[in-house]
Amino acid sequence: MAITLGLDVGGTKVLGVAVDAGGTVRAERRVSTPVGLDGLRRALVEAAEALRADTAGDETRAVGVGLPGLVDRQGVLRTGPHLPEARMWPAAAELGHALGLPVRVDNDANVATWGEARAGAGRGVGHVVMVTVGTGLGGGIVVDGTLVRGANGFAGEIGHLPVVSGGRVCPCGQAGCWERYASGTALGMLAREAAAAGRAPAVLARAGGSTAEVSGEHVTDAAAEGDRAAIALLAELGHWLAVGLAGLVDVFDPERIVVGGGLADAGDLLLGPTRAALDRMVMGHDVRPSVPVVPAALGERAGAIGAALLAREPVESARG
Amino acid sequence: MAITLGLDVGGTKVLGVAVDAGGTVRAERRVSTPVGLDGLRRALVEAAEALRADTAGDETRAVGVGLPGLVDRQGVLRTGPHLPEARMWPAAAELGHALGLPVRVDNDANVATWGEARAGAGRGVGHVVMVTVGTGLGGGIVVDGTLVRGANGFAGEIGHLPVVSGGRVCPCGQAGCWERYASGTALGMLAREAAAAGRAPAVLARAGGSTAEVSGEHVTDAAAEGDRAAIALLAELGHWLAVGLAGLVDVFDPERIVVGGGLADAGDLLLGPTRAALDRMVMGHDVRPSVPVVPAALGERAGAIGAALLAREPVESARG
Repeated sequence: MAITLGLDVGGTKVLGVAVDAGGTVRAERRVSTPVGLDGLRRALVEAAEALRADTAGDETRAVGVGLPGLVDRQGVLRTGPHLPEARMWPAAAELGHALGLPVRVDNDANVATWGEARAGAGRGVGHVVMVTVGTGLGGGIVVDGTLVRGANGFAGEIGHLPVVSGGRVCPCGQAGCWERYASGTALGMLAREAAAAGRAPAVLARAGGSTAEVSGEHVTDAAAEGDRAAIALLAELGHWLAVGLAGLVDVFDPERIVVGGGLADAGDLLLGPTRAALDRMVMGHDVRPSVPVVPAALGERAGAIGAALLAREPVESARG
Repeated sequence: MAITLGLDVGGTKVLGVAVDAGGTVRAERRVSTPVGLDGLRRALVEAAEALRADTAGDETRAVGVGLPGLVDRQGVLRTGPHLPEARMWPAAAELGHALGLPVRVDNDANVATWGEARAGAGRGVGHVVMVTVGTGLGGGIVVDGTLVRGANGFAGEIGHLPVVSGGRVCPCGQAGCWERYASGTALGMLAREAAAAGRAPAVLARAGGSTAEVSGEHVTDAAAEGDRAAIALLAELGHWLAVGLAGLVDVFDPERIVVGGGLADAGDLLLGPTRAALDRMVMGHDVRPSVPVVPAALGERAGAIGAALLAREPVESARG
């Protein structure tokens, strides 16, 4: 059977899978993300070789890799948050040479979007918006069954949509990016404000009584046990998630919105308020169908599976 | 020669063209937009018949129509700002029956985008964002050479991206839509504030000294004659235009941005500040090429030409 390999580089681990054409995982490997580019290069090659050995009876056709940062259509990492020395790293060319296989490299959020769209919660749907709500906010877009990559390959950076222009400062250099209002970091900020104002005693208790220690996880934990203040904080986060999603619905008119990332584990405590707010905010909501907002299905494997499936796709030209 | 017809319904006129495969206009007709749906239906049929007569030696293959409002993929006008009684009007089916030709109907901003992308300022480029800055703010998106229409056909409503969530109230029901900050209406508001504060005497003089009468046109006229206060107001508008464009560049990574609409006539007085602000705001601007921002090329004909060219395209299924 012809398989492809997918390698997803995260902040803490590299997750690798061998996947068949249907997206079924045939083998899996994981290693801690090494510090530095030399270590990462070696870890990626070793993971791919190990997965080939795991599936020795199958033909390995190609390898897909998901990297955090801006990856261009030639598979060059222009810049990445965790690899400052890897600026302009020709990842696809180097790894392809080392492995003797075609290697396709894309942004980590884009490959996770492709995984969910093809083999997860967006399966069977042509128009998908995926948003990953973790420490930050990422995502990707599928239009007419194709991943939107853009002229250079940099498309899909939805976390930096300006939703409160001039608002909270973002590490990207702008102020008011969606990520500053709808992410685990934003939830922590909302929770610290609430705790400081005496509005979230159960959340504060989980942080040992120290306002400065309050994080998004204290909120989701307290909400899961029914704490009303924590539930209200998740609803507020849901409002902000809906603000940007409404803009994306106006622009893309998707059939489905898939929500992944750690905060998706909060389930309907987050997605319920998100859906309610979104249905009010979309332009023309009284004459169009509501867009389903569903949790992601592939968990932490979405990126690796998506990278493997993307490696099967024909490489379109940079200029459409 | 095989031609197609394009009919663009505006607030004041219906503009019709007969166009060849290259987008060259072979005949043109225009009539005032009638009041009411019966009158509009009749005017569209008559314009099409007149254009067929004008090009009697050619074979008319199909007709494209651009309508203001939400038009679904079956060519039904779900709702439109100028035609309250036309809710759920099956425009494509009715006009197709009356004309005995395939009729394709889409949103007016989408057909104008297609016109500019195929035969105007976006020609030869696969990834285009078009923004039309008039009284309001509209536009459309081309990805990989294809117009983004979305699941229902409602994609491209970029004017309602939330850029100041909770900000200025928009007729769409939301608060803080981009259109409220980057349009002729927004320019008028900025100018009235400046006039009231005594910061725009030349602009105020053009409005007969009445602050309430100050409009965006007074600003563009004064700026064209070198008034510094008016030029500063256009620069402020350019900042707001760049805010939403930066979000669209983050999401779509286009090769080119085309700016149309009445305010594009301000030329570099508007587009210069827009370009400068955009280049600072795009994510990763230090590692990616600047996106050219160019004025539209087809003027008021963009929609009609685009409708005619869109009528040549194969009709893809609603589900990608």
